[in-house]
Amino acid sequence: MSADHTYPTRQLCEFLARFTLADVPAPVIERTKDLFLDWIASAIAGKDAPAVRKIQEFAAAMGPSTGDAEVFVDRRRTSPYFAALINGASSHVVEQDDVHNGSVLHPAAVVFPAVVAAAQAEGKTGAEVLLASIAGYEAGIRIGEFMGRSHYRIFHTTGTVGTLAAAAAVAKLYNLDAEGINQALGSAGTQAAGLWEFLRDAADSKQLHTAKAAADGLQSAWLARAGFTGAKQILEGAQGMAAGMSSDANPASLTDGLGTRWATAETSFKFFASCRHTHPAADALKVLMQREGISADQIASVTTHVHQGAIDVLGPVVNPTTIHQAKFSMGTVLGLVAVHGHAGLAEFEQHALQDAKVASFRGKVEMELDDEINAAYPRKWLGRVTVRTTDGRTLAARVDVPKGDPDNTLSRPELEAKALQLGAFRHGATEAEMRVIIARVWALESAPNVNDWLPAR
Amino acid sequence: MSADHTYPTRQLCEFLARFTLADVPAPVIERTKDLFLDWIASAIAGKDAPAVRKIQEFAAAMGPSTGDAEVFVDRRRTSPYFAALINGASSHVVEQDDVHNGSVLHPAAVVFPAVVAAAQAEGKTGAEVLLASIAGYEAGIRIGEFMGRSHYRIFHTTGTVGTLAAAAAVAKLYNLDAEGINQALGSAGTQAAGLWEFLRDAADSKQLHTAKAAADGLQSAWLARAGFTGAKQILEGAQGMAAGMSSDANPASLTDGLGTRWATAETSFKFFASCRHTHPAADALKVLMQREGISADQIASVTTHVHQGAIDVLGPVVNPTTIHQAKFSMGTVLGLVAVHGHAGLAEFEQHALQDAKVASFRGKVEMELDDEINAAYPRKWLGRVTVRTTDGRTLAARVDVPKGDPDNTLSRPELEAKALQLGAFRHGATEAEMRVIIARVWALESAPNVNDWLPAR
Repeated sequence: MSADHTYPTRQLCEFLARFTLADVPAPVIERTKDLFLDWIASAIAGKDAPAVRKIQEFAAAMGPSTGDAEVFVDRRRTSPYFAALINGASSHVVEQDDVHNGSVLHPAAVVFPAVVAAAQAEGKTGAEVLLASIAGYEAGIRIGEFMGRSHYRIFHTTGTVGTLAAAAAVAKLYNLDAEGINQALGSAGTQAAGLWEFLRDAADSKQLHTAKAAADGLQSAWLARAGFTGAKQILEGAQGMAAGMSSDANPASLTDGLGTRWATAETSFKFFASCRHTHPAADALKVLMQREGISADQIASVTTHVHQGAIDVLGPVVNPTTIHQAKFSMGTVLGLVAVHGHAGLAEFEQHALQDAKVASFRGKVEMELDDEINAAYPRKWLGRVTVRTTDGRTLAARVDVPKGDPDNTLSRPELEAKALQLGAFRHGATEAEMRVIIARVWALESAPNVNDWLPAR
Repeated sequence: MSADHTYPTRQLCEFLARFTLADVPAPVIERTKDLFLDWIASAIAGKDAPAVRKIQEFAAAMGPSTGDAEVFVDRRRTSPYFAALINGASSHVVEQDDVHNGSVLHPAAVVFPAVVAAAQAEGKTGAEVLLASIAGYEAGIRIGEFMGRSHYRIFHTTGTVGTLAAAAAVAKLYNLDAEGINQALGSAGTQAAGLWEFLRDAADSKQLHTAKAAADGLQSAWLARAGFTGAKQILEGAQGMAAGMSSDANPASLTDGLGTRWATAETSFKFFASCRHTHPAADALKVLMQREGISADQIASVTTHVHQGAIDVLGPVVNPTTIHQAKFSMGTVLGLVAVHGHAGLAEFEQHALQDAKVASFRGKVEMELDDEINAAYPRKWLGRVTVRTTDGRTLAARVDVPKGDPDNTLSRPELEAKALQLGAFRHGATEAEMRVIIARVWALESAPNVNDWLPAR
């Protein structure tokens, strides 16, 4: 049944096996380096987060205490599996890592931890890392789009699809052929998991999802190289992922524009330190307040006009009790923007929970499903807010391309500034260390290896 | 939202935290020891299976080379996580481990590897291991029943629900309270995975499913003990397991007869070395051939009257190409019974693939959905066959309680004989070693620890 090579998953694998860095347009390679810097800074910023610390403790109890792979938050070494696990957990916890709009996937948090850990164990070059990472992005984004919006209503796509993205990336790093990549996806898909239910409890699962996606993806590729087999049609088969976890899967997405459309470069950077679903409205509110010259005190209420996915993910968060949960509170994010001018890492740390003005503003914000915005989503994340002022005016603003999107992206100076802030956030890297990292990333395609990003402390 | 403790998952956790061995009827404890022996023999028999070997290689590359936990197939020691991983893989590969009919869960393959690995690292007693294992069975069986038949159509329940069964068991071993067990289930449920798609390719995923369920369940309990949180209503919540992976979930199943119904003792032993869905028909054919005194040559065709689940799982297997796949071929199993009198481990090894008579018989067997059998399933697994003889007769037979079911269970001599065969199968344990294991299992409730089952070689 899988003897023919005409099914969509196989066509995707054939492309992944075939393409080389010479096939990738130069701007896409440059953007991948941007994404890499943004990722490694995020992974470093996850230092000391309680959920990450517990995963470090687990790794210390269960994994080897030496190895080739680097753990960024504690500068120790272990095996690639555990390095991918910890770096996967830490990449996502400050909510500053990238996101691809159409697939609602956070590729960096799952692809790069797996690739770098595997590459460090095998002395792969920077060019090989870039190629493998692009394979992971191209596969993961298409698989996320394939799984559709119905999947994302219940499942955390970065956990589920992220496992396959990491597997595709490491399989490419290992130079597996189409058959091998297909086997890796089979093993990854059959362990793909991650449910949104944790949002109601502000639980630590989001870090477990990225940790396991990166580590299990690496495991799937490792096993495939060793000859361990998986289901060939794990995505579109009668008892595959779409059959079990989607009601609107579209197989054509799996092969959409292979070799011509570079989905990697469609990935957005986060400008605010919160869930991406809050960003369009936060942008629009910022525009409105600047345009009208009003302050938070003058605002009586804010209606954010949103897509259904925002309501699904943000709706359960009513009274955030942790900083991480506050990143999923539309009212808190808009409160930080209105009261403090920005909703970055520092604003969350200092003002998200204890600030009475922010808490008061939170109560003024509501979400309302908007048909136009919902129809445009997930390809476009349109921001629109309606503000009622204390003196009785009704004002509106919209932003069609949120800051950080490919058409409104961060410049290299902005990315460097963000990386320095992330390094400083928990003293994960000194400014001097981060500047060395920045210089290495901009020259990644000619790096002889990707070992030794941070000196042992 | 989870502040009230009245939701079904919480009630299950309250029971799991509360009960002690004094609450468990003596016959249930005795049956648990039967299940333990049947499991450890199965885990030993998985030696040298290619899928298990590759998971051993992965563990050697990624895990520590020393530790407290025993790997039965190679008699090495590693950390509990990797011992649970390998022992979980090896427990299920010869398809001789137990099954609970109502939940279609194989509890032994996921519960015992996790419990024993965790217990060896902490010097827990035999009584503590029994108690924890019963907790895993009671939880896993109810969660499997809760997820319903719709879940099993796409998902391998032993992979998905097995993760929670292992988590509940290890959480009980760690003496976690109801809150801690609830957290463990939250982390387990959000990484619960396993799709049937691999059946079409005779792929190795089934071993990955039990391996990961055991290891990830252990991980979930370990993390819960360390304070890592998960979703409270991971099973019944609006974005929980049932919402994502079932259309007929029944929350009442989660608390069914807690403290009075001991689901552990409802678990069946496998008499044939094949998928449990083939057993009722194999039993019925055996009865029919003995009653009528006919041989395989005299049979023109066999119609097996089956439930939908059998068609879902066995239907894709038309021409088995591996011994493992042949265990999912109704025609092969019936062919072994008809031609060789039994479908045990030895018959599969010697005759499942190369024997022309068995292959010929395979072509005579068809499955037909039977409404009565389908309605009784999964609480009863009714066997019924209709045979047409070469001389034109139509014969029928039915078996209402297949051999190995609780009401037609294996005696201790039969269990010991099966354990010795499993030990001898790949020379995983000598007869003397297996007799030592047998004696220790029969006295498990008074064992000071569960370390050192097999001497290093």
